[in-house]
Amino acid sequence: MSLVVVGSMAFDAIETPFGKTDKILGGAATYIALAASQFVKPVNAISVVGNDFLQSDMQMMESHGANLEGVQVKKDEKSFFWSGRYHNDMNSRDTLVTELNVLGTFDPVVPESYQGCEYLMLGNLSPDVQRQVIERLQTRPKLIVMDTMNFWMDIALDSLKETLKLIDVLVINDEEARQLSGSYSLKVAAKQIMEMGPKYLVIKKGEHGALLFHDGQVFSAPGLPLEEVFDPTGAGDTFAGGFIGYMAKTGGQDFEDMKRAVIFGSALASFCVEKFGPERLIGLEEAEMNARVREFVSLAHFQI
Amino acid sequence: MSLVVVGSMAFDAIETPFGKTDKILGGAATYIALAASQFVKPVNAISVVGNDFLQSDMQMMESHGANLEGVQVKKDEKSFFWSGRYHNDMNSRDTLVTELNVLGTFDPVVPESYQGCEYLMLGNLSPDVQRQVIERLQTRPKLIVMDTMNFWMDIALDSLKETLKLIDVLVINDEEARQLSGSYSLKVAAKQIMEMGPKYLVIKKGEHGALLFHDGQVFSAPGLPLEEVFDPTGAGDTFAGGFIGYMAKTGGQDFEDMKRAVIFGSALASFCVEKFGPERLIGLEEAEMNARVREFVSLAHFQI
Repeated sequence: MSLVVVGSMAFDAIETPFGKTDKILGGAATYIALAASQFVKPVNAISVVGNDFLQSDMQMMESHGANLEGVQVKKDEKSFFWSGRYHNDMNSRDTLVTELNVLGTFDPVVPESYQGCEYLMLGNLSPDVQRQVIERLQTRPKLIVMDTMNFWMDIALDSLKETLKLIDVLVINDEEARQLSGSYSLKVAAKQIMEMGPKYLVIKKGEHGALLFHDGQVFSAPGLPLEEVFDPTGAGDTFAGGFIGYMAKTGGQDFEDMKRAVIFGSALASFCVEKFGPERLIGLEEAEMNARVREFVSLAHFQI
Repeated sequence: MSLVVVGSMAFDAIETPFGKTDKILGGAATYIALAASQFVKPVNAISVVGNDFLQSDMQMMESHGANLEGVQVKKDEKSFFWSGRYHNDMNSRDTLVTELNVLGTFDPVVPESYQGCEYLMLGNLSPDVQRQVIERLQTRPKLIVMDTMNFWMDIALDSLKETLKLIDVLVINDEEARQLSGSYSLKVAAKQIMEMGPKYLVIKKGEHGALLFHDGQVFSAPGLPLEEVFDPTGAGDTFAGGFIGYMAKTGGQDFEDMKRAVIFGSALASFCVEKFGPERLIGLEEAEMNARVREFVSLAHFQI
């Protein structure tokens, strides 16, 4: 079913204990689109880039099924740029550079051909922009999934709360859930966050997997123990892309569907961390993904 | 099947954000025995206490099926005492007082009636003492499970490694697994630790559940999201007691049995944290435990 994804398309420069990159392809919409394209094509992207964005990256994304009609190219500006350095434990990082560039004035355009979309993924962006996209769709999608981060809780909490009222599923990490709710217990936090609007909440816990909450129910997806995490950049966006992609492919809407979507998202995220940036997602085979999902099944299975 | 458990029986004074206790019943063998008694009776305990240990606590343990024939009472000495304060996140704590007292010279005695036991749980203690118990059993138990902590890795690593060669299952937390192996990745750590002797390794991750490793296989048990963790003291020992108790009851020895044992141990640990000390384990009904296990089944279940 038709899918629209919104988010940054950008450059990242990444430093990990394993090495460092120059400016490479990054951005939430990039990871989301590549992950979602495992399930549905086209993935209709809404984003903005500058004159420095590479044609070859655009072409790579199109060859993976991205429709870039909704991606504005600003001729006199530069693309969003982020640079960060991961600590040895790979669980925390320092931001070295954030250049908003084109994102600072992003006014999202919804092409006519995107109207009527049934699934909408709002990648991490200003909650104002996320809300504008919802408002600019003439009919409300069947399922709206949204990511956000602590930065917006710090500087735009009121706007974030407005946007939360309009969505179905919020996907955030444990630290963000604690900040947004003010509760340390994730169970209490989930209850409080769902009172803000979303009917479903996914809390990502990195190597510890993810929790899915809805209406008194909870599902715990395991984290796959990995020998090595090479670069965590984009893993959360990849998770979100896998989640919405699975839902859009299957037409899913209920808790059981979302449990499976969490597993597929987790499987894709486990690939993402194996190489720098989105490299491992490029050309990823469906058979590889399905084999990884079977590892998750085996990992979590027990019979009482 | 017959079960012997070894560990401290002690006093704890606990401070949490929710309140503080005077000296209350504590000790690894106490929690292990109470948890294991959900599955098998008697639970044959090996420990040592001082003249200050309460008769009423002894009687409570006996009424739960503990056999205290192997518990030495030192007339002129005091029981082991630990005092600690938990931080607000309940994941870390400061030790305020450690008085070894009777534990400083503990020379474990294995009563004749304990000989031939099939399941042995070595609670956290000096690895010398743990090894002595193994050596003083005339026949090797069918399954030896052991707990330890970073303290012994710091001051008695060689002895710990000797003891590791003699056991089947090591049960430690993630921080301890990383320290013992020197590897941050738990998958790599598990491989390295199993090369030290144990054929199975359980890594406890607190609120994030537990991992069970064996011979290239891995199982991830979820952590039950709780509204409130009142006091984490003894949760790890309770987990271990539930694990060995389940194995002893079912005669289990393989990976599938151990997966179930991890779930039962996790369920009992989730009760332990609901009240101060071992209070919630006292008089815990089998039906309560089984209902909690069903929550774990529902929490982890998905169908691809």
